[in-house]
Amino acid sequence: MRGKMNAVVKHHRGYGAQLQVVDIPVFREDEVLIRVNMASICGTDIHIYTWDKWSQGRVKPPYVFGHEFSGEVVAVGANVANVSVGDSVSAETHIVCGRCRQCLTGQFHICKHTSIIGVDTHGCFSEYVALPAKNLWKNPIDMPTDIATIQEPMGNAVHSVLAGDVLGKTVAIIGCGPIGLMAVAVAKAAGADKVIALDINEYRLQLAKKMGATHLIQSNKDDPLEIIQQLTNTDGVDVVCEMSGNPAAIDQGFKMVTNGGRVSILSLPAQPVMLNITEDIVFKGLTVQGITGRKMFSTWQQVSSLLGSGKVDVKPMITHRFSLSDFEKGFDLMIKGQCGKVLLIP
Amino acid sequence: MRGKMNAVVKHHRGYGAQLQVVDIPVFREDEVLIRVNMASICGTDIHIYTWDKWSQGRVKPPYVFGHEFSGEVVAVGANVANVSVGDSVSAETHIVCGRCRQCLTGQFHICKHTSIIGVDTHGCFSEYVALPAKNLWKNPIDMPTDIATIQEPMGNAVHSVLAGDVLGKTVAIIGCGPIGLMAVAVAKAAGADKVIALDINEYRLQLAKKMGATHLIQSNKDDPLEIIQQLTNTDGVDVVCEMSGNPAAIDQGFKMVTNGGRVSILSLPAQPVMLNITEDIVFKGLTVQGITGRKMFSTWQQVSSLLGSGKVDVKPMITHRFSLSDFEKGFDLMIKGQCGKVLLIP
Amino acid sequence: MRGKMNAVVKHHRGYGAQLQVVDIPVFREDEVLIRVNMASICGTDIHIYTWDKWSQGRVKPPYVFGHEFSGEVVAVGANVANVSVGDSVSAETHIVCGRCRQCLTGQFHICKHTSIIGVDTHGCFSEYVALPAKNLWKNPIDMPTDIATIQEPMGNAVHSVLAGDVLGKTVAIIGCGPIGLMAVAVAKAAGADKVIALDINEYRLQLAKKMGATHLIQSNKDDPLEIIQQLTNTDGVDVVCEMSGNPAAIDQGFKMVTNGGRVSILSLPAQPVMLNITEDIVFKGLTVQGITGRKMFSTWQQVSSLLGSGKVDVKPMITHRFSLSDFEKGFDLMIKGQCGKVLLIP
Amino acid sequence: MRGKMNAVVKHHRGYGAQLQVVDIPVFREDEVLIRVNMASICGTDIHIYTWDKWSQGRVKPPYVFGHEFSGEVVAVGANVANVSVGDSVSAETHIVCGRCRQCLTGQFHICKHTSIIGVDTHGCFSEYVALPAKNLWKNPIDMPTDIATIQEPMGNAVHSVLAGDVLGKTVAIIGCGPIGLMAVAVAKAAGADKVIALDINEYRLQLAKKMGATHLIQSNKDDPLEIIQQLTNTDGVDVVCEMSGNPAAIDQGFKMVTNGGRVSILSLPAQPVMLNITEDIVFKGLTVQGITGRKMFSTWQQVSSLLGSGKVDVKPMITHRFSLSDFEKGFDLMIKGQCGKVLLIP
Repeated sequence: MRGKMNAVVKHHRGYGAQLQVVDIPVFREDEVLIRVNMASICGTDIHIYTWDKWSQGRVKPPYVFGHEFSGEVVAVGANVANVSVGDSVSAETHIVCGRCRQCLTGQFHICKHTSIIGVDTHGCFSEYVALPAKNLWKNPIDMPTDIATIQEPMGNAVHSVLAGDVLGKTVAIIGCGPIGLMAVAVAKAAGADKVIALDINEYRLQLAKKMGATHLIQSNKDDPLEIIQQLTNTDGVDVVCEMSGNPAAIDQGFKMVTNGGRVSILSLPAQPVMLNITEDIVFKGLTVQGITGRKMFSTWQQVSSLLGSGKVDVKPMITHRFSLSDFEKGFDLMIKGQCGKVLLIP
Repeated sequence: MRGKMNAVVKHHRGYGAQLQVVDIPVFREDEVLIRVNMASICGTDIHIYTWDKWSQGRVKPPYVFGHEFSGEVVAVGANVANVSVGDSVSAETHIVCGRCRQCLTGQFHICKHTSIIGVDTHGCFSEYVALPAKNLWKNPIDMPTDIATIQEPMGNAVHSVLAGDVLGKTVAIIGCGPIGLMAVAVAKAAGADKVIALDINEYRLQLAKKMGATHLIQSNKDDPLEIIQQLTNTDGVDVVCEMSGNPAAIDQGFKMVTNGGRVSILSLPAQPVMLNITEDIVFKGLTVQGITGRKMFSTWQQVSSLLGSGKVDVKPMITHRFSLSDFEKGFDLMIKGQCGKVLLIP
Repeated sequence: MRGKMNAVVKHHRGYGAQLQVVDIPVFREDEVLIRVNMASICGTDIHIYTWDKWSQGRVKPPYVFGHEFSGEVVAVGANVANVSVGDSVSAETHIVCGRCRQCLTGQFHICKHTSIIGVDTHGCFSEYVALPAKNLWKNPIDMPTDIATIQEPMGNAVHSVLAGDVLGKTVAIIGCGPIGLMAVAVAKAAGADKVIALDINEYRLQLAKKMGATHLIQSNKDDPLEIIQQLTNTDGVDVVCEMSGNPAAIDQGFKMVTNGGRVSILSLPAQPVMLNITEDIVFKGLTVQGITGRKMFSTWQQVSSLLGSGKVDVKPMITHRFSLSDFEKGFDLMIKGQCGKVLLIP
Repeated sequence: MRGKMNAVVKHHRGYGAQLQVVDIPVFREDEVLIRVNMASICGTDIHIYTWDKWSQGRVKPPYVFGHEFSGEVVAVGANVANVSVGDSVSAETHIVCGRCRQCLTGQFHICKHTSIIGVDTHGCFSEYVALPAKNLWKNPIDMPTDIATIQEPMGNAVHSVLAGDVLGKTVAIIGCGPIGLMAVAVAKAAGADKVIALDINEYRLQLAKKMGATHLIQSNKDDPLEIIQQLTNTDGVDVVCEMSGNPAAIDQGFKMVTNGGRVSILSLPAQPVMLNITEDIVFKGLTVQGITGRKMFSTWQQVSSLLGSGKVDVKPMITHRFSLSDFEKGFDLMIKGQCGKVLLIP
């Protein structure tokens, strides 16, 4: 399939991006071509858009970025057997080697040679995208397009919350960006007792409430540790999901968790963090987990079930929709934190 | 049983301790009186002896300290059913409440109201000690006294190493004090492939070799990360047991472990430690565990089995024996690090 | 406290029981006396009432039976510290030794020397009961009496369902007696996707629907295996909770579960069962679990949370209430299977 | 590569096999051609050779059977990237679909559409074999050929023994065929305390002793349950690995295991087995596992480590070697049980 298409291109080594007309991508024997029905903006895209230190060291403009989407398969390579033309699909963002020690033991999400769609390869902020067939996840035919689009980031929320038991437990979600908001709903769906949402952003705390948070703590106004002492009968929370990346919040996370508790960290703090290992980890007998990506593909199955059964309703956190050409409006809202998830429609 | 006995008393709020003649302790209905056959010196005893900051805030002289021992039951309280006069016993050091959230879920080792024998109560550096019956562990009749004595600290090693799978894996033991030395042998007995011992102390590295370490790294002379890259075909180690408490060594520990690996921390660093959470925990998908005490009493069963079956031979790391009255010689060696385990004989 | 009380006594080695006036029980130093507010009838009580083979070999009339209840502490023994007069309590039914290999590793529910309240000791079908303090579970002050009463059997349901992961999974509950009915609700609360209830009793299937079952199969009318093939896209269910005790149903349970699935058996089939180990267990890579009692006390904590948070509503399955003197009406309904849970009020 | 080769062909639907000269197999783009250096005879091969009921329903003569081997890659298909000409390889026998619910969650060993090398496809009892590249496991260059050859069945032993914890535990291995013999050694290497080998075959019990069994029970002469009561202080064993397929032995296995123990079944009993679920599974709180194949490829990594580190020495159980043309001698020994592992050299 030849022709031209619109795409949001990270065009230079600096702030911003441009809508450009580019070639529809070619695909290899083990790849498929997908027409993008909808995409959404991830925090990673903001890093790239604002050209922060991390993106300066990682991405190589010009290229099409974006990696969260749903679309329809329009052509398949000669060696592709797992999807067909007409299938509705989304994609796992990690392209893995299949041969390292991690891949050989089924830990694909921490493959030592991962490349990432929309970061290291052309992405989905465009009308078409070409992707490896093995990265595709088939969506149920009755799944709404907007819901299908946010499965990938919801996978991060599911991977974090369900990295241990939450049933009957008190769970604190620190940081209520889109993934934190979904984590609130996932914890509820998995049987958590109290789900405490923490953020400094009042707007996002209100979204957290809509997603099912039983208690809200505005960290810059209230004293999180004191409130949590009260809410938990001085026990502390059982589980912390850290999604803020803020060093002070992370330190509080370790202090609010009870002996034997779990701290699952999905955030990527921009600088090293000082931890009181003796008091906050060793004496407490804590388990701390680094969470990255999604388990392939058991996390996707969990996401699909939670959405399909209606146990998690993500509608309240999908707050804005723009046409692809209006992408700048979406990026501005994300930078200001005045939104939940922002969708882009090619 | 009335009378006097010799005891090593932490007599004042300052450096050192004194041999004194004190009353043989009385015991309650749920306690037993034990004649101490042998005791050994723990790192915690060194903190108390040298009167460091931690001990200044915790212990209340004058009292008898020490908690590692084996002995014989000489009298039992009216409500005691689990041990009898004549039994050979050692003791779990944690006295737990049995009623907190942790105790009620079987996580006694992280009880929120733990008091510690020899720290918060009178200990075993004496001819007799009175202890709660529920803390006692019956030793097999054929277990040598010196071996029985070091079961409690060996429990720390077992708890750390076996907090996850090690069979066929590469394990790094950072810090070769007595517990680190036993951890080396435990990892070997549990089927670890390579066991890499790290320390700055040449004497203790040689003990690590005797305990079964397959590779030694003298951290102040060699570059641990470079050597480990070579030893593991650039993969890194699967498991780190951190027993040094040294911030630089801890940081190296996080850098030497492979994606999806485990870092189990038993040490108690004296100050906060700076960690690169993003690169060293999140992207790696690490699991970090705080390890304290021993699981009651599954760790004791594992210790007993490893010693009884001969799978772990602790003799090479029991380097010195003194009479109780010569306790100062033992403490001096421990402070200098020129020893493995030091035994005291009342 | 001296005096007389009404009690339902298993009075002879034969069918039935009698309401008698007996002494209020005396209690020991480590026991408490409880005024029973409400009790409920367990399947075990039916075995004893109908004097089946098992009860002939186990229980020793005359004695007061019954073990599910809630009540108020009215007196405590001298050594009791964990409850006080006035506390609302229910009781774990297993009285454990604390000293066997299982107890020493925290597996109290499978203690090798368990005795059971109301089976091996006097029970709660009476105005007062004396019980070991360590078996008591304190109820929240705002928990309704009927809800508090059924926590013990709900613990069986929780132990069975949560013996593995159910989130996003398809769970079959075979046998919709009271515990099966609660298992349906627990599976839903824990995030199960489809919850399929199977029974031959139409009345109980309708109760299962009220408890949240997404699909009902009347096993004597429909073909369970065929329906499950349809419901699961030929995959089979992920989890089977077997609560029927019926050999044919058990065999079907093994056949309806998918490769890598779990079969958790709480029922007590009256005779040996023929299993096709090769096809139904080995090639499938199944995990089969025997489930008995409740984990002490982590299961109780889960029960308390599920009830307190409203995630599980047990009201629909509490179908009948009688005064203690009308106990025979309750037993008749249970024998006929025309009820959910039956409460008795002293 | 064209030409002819010798192969042991299952030539007809009846007893036996024939040495024939056949075409060297062709290979597809995702396959490789391997020169077989050594093969070994599996129990499955005996089923096929003796033409039992299972093989009558499964295999389709004429074809080359056999699946345990080591060899050298001599040619690779166009799409093969993970191995190169000259590599020494063995192969995982399960060819999996990669798309079923099990494969998508990393449980490849219980793929619902597995086909098996040497059963459903041409195997390795020949000079050359063509296999899918993704099934290959690269052997270390210094691994002896005979050791490399038996990795696949050793994987069964490893998968069974290590399906739960064995350190410090008492493990019974029922059935001392080649896999049972290797299981004995794996249990020892993983830190098991007592390893009790059971068989009716005196010859194989002596091999079990050489492999490290601490106790031998000849089941047709001794009373296994009585002896195990004595050996375990009436506790019973912690773990049973069932590799006999004999109904009476299986029943004994369930009776010899302690409360909370594990029964891992690798054997394939030829008919249904009667189990006392109530007493032997439910009241005991047992876990029963069906074990099939090897985890891809974490089991292979464990096997490689255990062999490479010398923790498991399989030499004592490799008892016979024949040239491929003498295959009948090997099959006869296997049928009589007068051997450990039998190697065939093309």
